[in-house]
Amino acid sequence: MRTKVGIIGAGPAGLLLSHLLHLRGIDSVVLERRSRAYVEQRVRAGVLEQGTVDTLVSSGVGERLLREGLPHQGIELRYGGAGHRIAFEKLVPGRAITVYGQQEVVKDLIAARLAAGGDIRFEVDDVAVHDLGTDRPYVTFGDERLDCDVIAGCDGFHGICRPSIPEGTLTEFRRDYPFAWLGILARVAPSADELIYARTDRGFALHSMRSPEISRFYLQVAADDHIDAWPDERVWAELKARLETVPGFTLGTGEVIEKGITPMRSFVAEPMQYGRLFLAGDAAHIVPPTGAKGLNLAVADVRVLTEALAAFFADGSTTLLDGYSRACLTRVWRAQHFSWWMTTLLHTFDSDDEYGRRLQTSYLDYVTTSEAAATTLAENYVGLPYGEKGTS
Amino acid sequence: MRTKVGIIGAGPAGLLLSHLLHLRGIDSVVLERRSRAYVEQRVRAGVLEQGTVDTLVSSGVGERLLREGLPHQGIELRYGGAGHRIAFEKLVPGRAITVYGQQEVVKDLIAARLAAGGDIRFEVDDVAVHDLGTDRPYVTFGDERLDCDVIAGCDGFHGICRPSIPEGTLTEFRRDYPFAWLGILARVAPSADELIYARTDRGFALHSMRSPEISRFYLQVAADDHIDAWPDERVWAELKARLETVPGFTLGTGEVIEKGITPMRSFVAEPMQYGRLFLAGDAAHIVPPTGAKGLNLAVADVRVLTEALAAFFADGSTTLLDGYSRACLTRVWRAQHFSWWMTTLLHTFDSDDEYGRRLQTSYLDYVTTSEAAATTLAENYVGLPYGEKGTS
Repeated sequence: MRTKVGIIGAGPAGLLLSHLLHLRGIDSVVLERRSRAYVEQRVRAGVLEQGTVDTLVSSGVGERLLREGLPHQGIELRYGGAGHRIAFEKLVPGRAITVYGQQEVVKDLIAARLAAGGDIRFEVDDVAVHDLGTDRPYVTFGDERLDCDVIAGCDGFHGICRPSIPEGTLTEFRRDYPFAWLGILARVAPSADELIYARTDRGFALHSMRSPEISRFYLQVAADDHIDAWPDERVWAELKARLETVPGFTLGTGEVIEKGITPMRSFVAEPMQYGRLFLAGDAAHIVPPTGAKGLNLAVADVRVLTEALAAFFADGSTTLLDGYSRACLTRVWRAQHFSWWMTTLLHTFDSDDEYGRRLQTSYLDYVTTSEAAATTLAENYVGLPYGEKGTS
Repeated sequence: MRTKVGIIGAGPAGLLLSHLLHLRGIDSVVLERRSRAYVEQRVRAGVLEQGTVDTLVSSGVGERLLREGLPHQGIELRYGGAGHRIAFEKLVPGRAITVYGQQEVVKDLIAARLAAGGDIRFEVDDVAVHDLGTDRPYVTFGDERLDCDVIAGCDGFHGICRPSIPEGTLTEFRRDYPFAWLGILARVAPSADELIYARTDRGFALHSMRSPEISRFYLQVAADDHIDAWPDERVWAELKARLETVPGFTLGTGEVIEKGITPMRSFVAEPMQYGRLFLAGDAAHIVPPTGAKGLNLAVADVRVLTEALAAFFADGSTTLLDGYSRACLTRVWRAQHFSWWMTTLLHTFDSDDEYGRRLQTSYLDYVTTSEAAATTLAENYVGLPYGEKGTS
């Protein structure tokens, strides 16, 4: 079996790449270890930057997103007994976020690929990549072999692509945070129209949503906390303690549909390529979810990779492919920094002394009173424009 | 002997307070442990915010400052082999800084006080403050006693006023940085028109100036470094290594007039008052010098205290006096945060891993490419306006 681009992983990165390549007339095969049902149900990110929305809409897979997605013009920072709105419509006019679950993006992309006759293989076993340093790399899975011109590693942080790059090639940067996020999905209408990022002495909490009927909540918990220690009643009690801190706000509760604990981690591998293998999304970099950047970075990578592959298949030019990693990494590091910044601004750290806690409050006071400071949050949150200086 | 306000310390805070009170018809006595020559020669801060300049000029002590001070419309951030200008004229129009040595401010204030018949006692011994919790506090020094209505503690971080407040009254917040600044004053024209904040892998360096003939430089050194380890040749060699990092820049050298090592420390005592004692400037709070905020914060405190004392002596109202600390502390914490921010943005930390170093570079890239982020630096550096939300 032969294709131009062998894509490992049917998450948002791999599926979008396959879709965008198809629009350029470049064929690909997507190989996914999990079932279609699994990836279509997997609850992950849910905040799309303006640029991500633009990419999906302009490539023809935004019809349901535009109909069902919830555009938000701001977020609330809640601390010290008051809420402070970061108003995107005023600070970054014309740019906003759209709340739309990652699994919905995945469903839309799978539907589009299959409608176009795209080749996605689910539940494939024993995927391995070979001869990456040559111009005839190939993939094996099950009993099959897929010959390619290029392989795209879109298989996430725990995928097989990055570890297939020879030892000593990549430089890895990482930071682990001393806490985790406990997330729940609940069958209850959101208690506010916008996301609420709450900083309290008990730890951070996030009020979010997936639809008018489904809410999403996160709690900062200990890094070694276990889900068994968090029966639903405890989760709701803690969410109330951290979110019901301003007059008149009552948290609605409902059936918990899903519950899990996610480690908080920052990671970058450089360069994001080796020979004919190109990493995109979580396979190359991870951010803590505070800044809602993970999915959006994956989309940004895929945009860059699509252009580079289009040039390569048009006339054999490798200039853009050679510069792929460099083109992505400026934006990657901006998102790394922003995610770290949001995380340290809003979480409690056991290591912080009283001075550190006061600095944090002072910073929050500044971000919520200075237009310039609020704009730094807003412009990163909605996503820096593509192609500007300092971004990819 | 009796006066309305007994002022401990003839630094910028104490002298300016005495001067501003005099303009309101309120008499004071300033007591200073050091000689006049000493305080007039003491090299400290040299960057005046717009609000500090405005205060000095509008109170009639800005004549020489306007003539000899060097107005600056920007600073340079130098790293990664390039310089990046933070352009105040574009980012914060109408606001700038003025380079003018603290000792020059002190000379101007002493001259003004003496010309107006003000009472400043230099080289007084054994200063102590008493009965602070009553409405008849007094000061003793040498064999004398000074009865007051109010005492102003303007005697710096190591002064006697703050420790005279009963144990358990103040909450103290502090952070010590794991490095110090080695500063020199040199007889050589500045090598650039504006201040240069340089971040290198060897550590931070600052190119500054006091006049067209006198330059001021700082080097990040180890916290336990000793001045004997830094003969002039080593200082110049290290300054060149950290500053001559962009094409075409050559550091001029000259006779070293002064050399010293300053610890880097953050400190706040709350509240800044007890009974009839009011602390102002370094007596209440210290910032690392990176943000050039120490002297400017002292001036801001004194402005607030002057208004409060004017109200008190006009009709006995204690409302403003009671609120003095609260009125100052918002600005104090803003400056604490900004000073910490500038310090962590520009210094190397032994504790930083590679991830931390990349975050720092990414932050610098952001500050030098985003107008919003550059504005956060600029508006803090020139000084937030008085009386706005979030400042005092």
